[in-house]
Amino acid sequence: MHGNLLYAQSGGVTSVINQSAAGAILQARTKSDIRSVYVAQNGVNGILQERLFDCSRSDLGALAYSPGGYFGSCRYKLPAPGQADYKPVMDRIIEVFQAHNIRFFLYNGGGDSQDTLLKIALYAKERNYRLYCVGIPKTIDNDLVGTDNSPGFGSAAKYLALSTAEVACDLRAMHHDSTKLVVMEVMGRNTGWLAAATSLAGDIDPLFEPDAIVLPERSYQPQLLLKRCRQRLAQKGFCLVIVAEGIVDQEHHHLSPDQDLDAFGHPQLGGITPKIANYLKRHLGVKTHWAIPAYLQRSARHLVSANDLRQAEEVARAAVDLAVKGVSEVMVTIRRQQDAPYIWHIDQVPLHLVANQEKTVPDNFIDQSGMVITEQGKSYLRPLIVGESPPPYTAGLPSYGYCQQPLMAQVLPAFKLH
Amino acid sequence: MHGNLLYAQSGGVTSVINQSAAGAILQARTKSDIRSVYVAQNGVNGILQERLFDCSRSDLGALAYSPGGYFGSCRYKLPAPGQADYKPVMDRIIEVFQAHNIRFFLYNGGGDSQDTLLKIALYAKERNYRLYCVGIPKTIDNDLVGTDNSPGFGSAAKYLALSTAEVACDLRAMHHDSTKLVVMEVMGRNTGWLAAATSLAGDIDPLFEPDAIVLPERSYQPQLLLKRCRQRLAQKGFCLVIVAEGIVDQEHHHLSPDQDLDAFGHPQLGGITPKIANYLKRHLGVKTHWAIPAYLQRSARHLVSANDLRQAEEVARAAVDLAVKGVSEVMVTIRRQQDAPYIWHIDQVPLHLVANQEKTVPDNFIDQSGMVITEQGKSYLRPLIVGESPPPYTAGLPSYGYCQQPLMAQVLPAFKLH
Repeated sequence: MHGNLLYAQSGGVTSVINQSAAGAILQARTKSDIRSVYVAQNGVNGILQERLFDCSRSDLGALAYSPGGYFGSCRYKLPAPGQADYKPVMDRIIEVFQAHNIRFFLYNGGGDSQDTLLKIALYAKERNYRLYCVGIPKTIDNDLVGTDNSPGFGSAAKYLALSTAEVACDLRAMHHDSTKLVVMEVMGRNTGWLAAATSLAGDIDPLFEPDAIVLPERSYQPQLLLKRCRQRLAQKGFCLVIVAEGIVDQEHHHLSPDQDLDAFGHPQLGGITPKIANYLKRHLGVKTHWAIPAYLQRSARHLVSANDLRQAEEVARAAVDLAVKGVSEVMVTIRRQQDAPYIWHIDQVPLHLVANQEKTVPDNFIDQSGMVITEQGKSYLRPLIVGESPPPYTAGLPSYGYCQQPLMAQVLPAFKLH
Repeated sequence: MHGNLLYAQSGGVTSVINQSAAGAILQARTKSDIRSVYVAQNGVNGILQERLFDCSRSDLGALAYSPGGYFGSCRYKLPAPGQADYKPVMDRIIEVFQAHNIRFFLYNGGGDSQDTLLKIALYAKERNYRLYCVGIPKTIDNDLVGTDNSPGFGSAAKYLALSTAEVACDLRAMHHDSTKLVVMEVMGRNTGWLAAATSLAGDIDPLFEPDAIVLPERSYQPQLLLKRCRQRLAQKGFCLVIVAEGIVDQEHHHLSPDQDLDAFGHPQLGGITPKIANYLKRHLGVKTHWAIPAYLQRSARHLVSANDLRQAEEVARAAVDLAVKGVSEVMVTIRRQQDAPYIWHIDQVPLHLVANQEKTVPDNFIDQSGMVITEQGKSYLRPLIVGESPPPYTAGLPSYGYCQQPLMAQVLPAFKLH
């Protein structure tokens, strides 16, 4: 099968997602079956609007070492079969693919994005349009099923473990007559993978390990947290609490004060931490600070995990290989053979097993208190944060960039729904 | 003059303050006039409680590349002359100095700490106790007078400029159909130096420069900020706002929702950002996120400015040299000869000109809008963030530590007030 390849990404960015883009583009350029290598601007939006970059030969500039999405991303959710917009939207996608003879389609994203990819793959089949669709895993949340871990997670985990240790150093120095309690909020919609990763700060020194990690996998029970903080303050003089943004109460309701829905119908989370910090401060009577790194944790390209960066590239290269071999409706995965020394290899999983699924932190990674990560959990996490790979610096700042090449000429009329 | 040297630090930590400690200790070890090199645990608290480390020959371990305060810090404010505790506290300090034949005293800190040092210097003189007191400048806030810049500031500035660029990369990629506005809160009690430093993100790409910086030097005017955000959203599709924690309203009142006082009688700031973000979101109707890096910005040893690190060491070495030469009641300072190429040298300023003073961002660094940093401001800021000097890493994490050597045997009875 000869034709052109299209790469696009969707969902929240990671600090290494552009390394996947670079891997896919460079690998595609080596394939004789692939004539041109295209990238859609802002994911599926760019397909619908026929906003494509021709990256067959273009200079990739700062692509491999820039955070954010070099070609833009999106949170657009495809309509479901049966919805009024479904047929026009899906037909438009096939029309764009036909107009540009796109036969290999790689979509980089989390569970929602793999669902988008599966819908497109199935619709192409229905329309008898020959298209090889391969998913590239990505999410800082690490909640993708079918893969041992997701590119993007290891770097966010490293950033958070290291920032936790740095905050602990600060707190340890100051707690004598100043701040004794810090509450830090980390991302993680329904899963506590990132929160769990902060436990690795304890590998530097046991004193730096968070004293309590509030995970979405366990309901938030204020009195238990308060009790634990009181114990830890008595034992070590200061206390560091990590809160996942997506924690739930005993009725499984999100505790986030902001209930706006995002494009996928999920509530926009974040911001519960000031309330928890005030609650603890009021009952413990100690000087308290709180931190919310928010986007900093998923865009900290200056502090990526080299293992994560390498996997981000390898999963994308493997996706090209699979598509060219005629494989479709799968997502590339990472299989772990052993923790230490870390050995992994590339594998694949059918898309229908991945789409719209979510992998939570397993029970044996969380101790009986529900607030501490077990040795088994740490053994899983450790290899994912190993290695440094800083970007090039000029005058004290990294040389980040974004795609500034012109879009391809459009050959179709503009697309409008309704 | 022969005798022992005591080093101590006070106030909030910085990511390079331990490099000052290392510089002071190593320089003191080279002086034949100095018999023993002592460090007080937790600043002046450690002096009062006679909690001292003998660092004359001890292994300094991870000192030079650890964040936080390796020997601890404090926020204790000495009583003023006339207060009931003044004489017993000051007498105790002299008693501890006498007991350990401390003749050279270096205190590392900001304006409040230099005031502590001056009080001790003057009291020693009153008591005819020969003591050479030299201050070492330190503060991430950069608000110390008499010095071109303060060690600690450059690294926090670099962390914030770089994090701003990373958040801007994220926002640029996502704004098409997701988050369009981010508000990030940075430290800075009454001065906007750190907030101003985020403007350097624009040196990477003009698109990464914050669209509005709310500085404590200008009163916060919600409607002007809203107007500017609306303009920038229309021009570039997304908007990044930086807010200094210490911003004030038009009546010069702090806007922080938390009005607890710290040990120096200053209100504990931080946390106004959710309110500002909600105000902007409500009026602009765009998806909004906010970030509060808090302690992360002042403890990010993984991302220090090499220029800052070097200055932190040099000011401490110079302080030892001055004290041994018999100079007292001064603080070491940094004088700038030119911006580019950056040339600076070490100087000194009388303590009484520094104590309890505050240096704000000058008018010519802020443009007419009050929310943008001028080219003059950027020229001042640029050299301070230059150079990288990461800590050593093991298994993906930096080898941070803190002082674990035993305290010296106490020779005096325990000290109790009242």
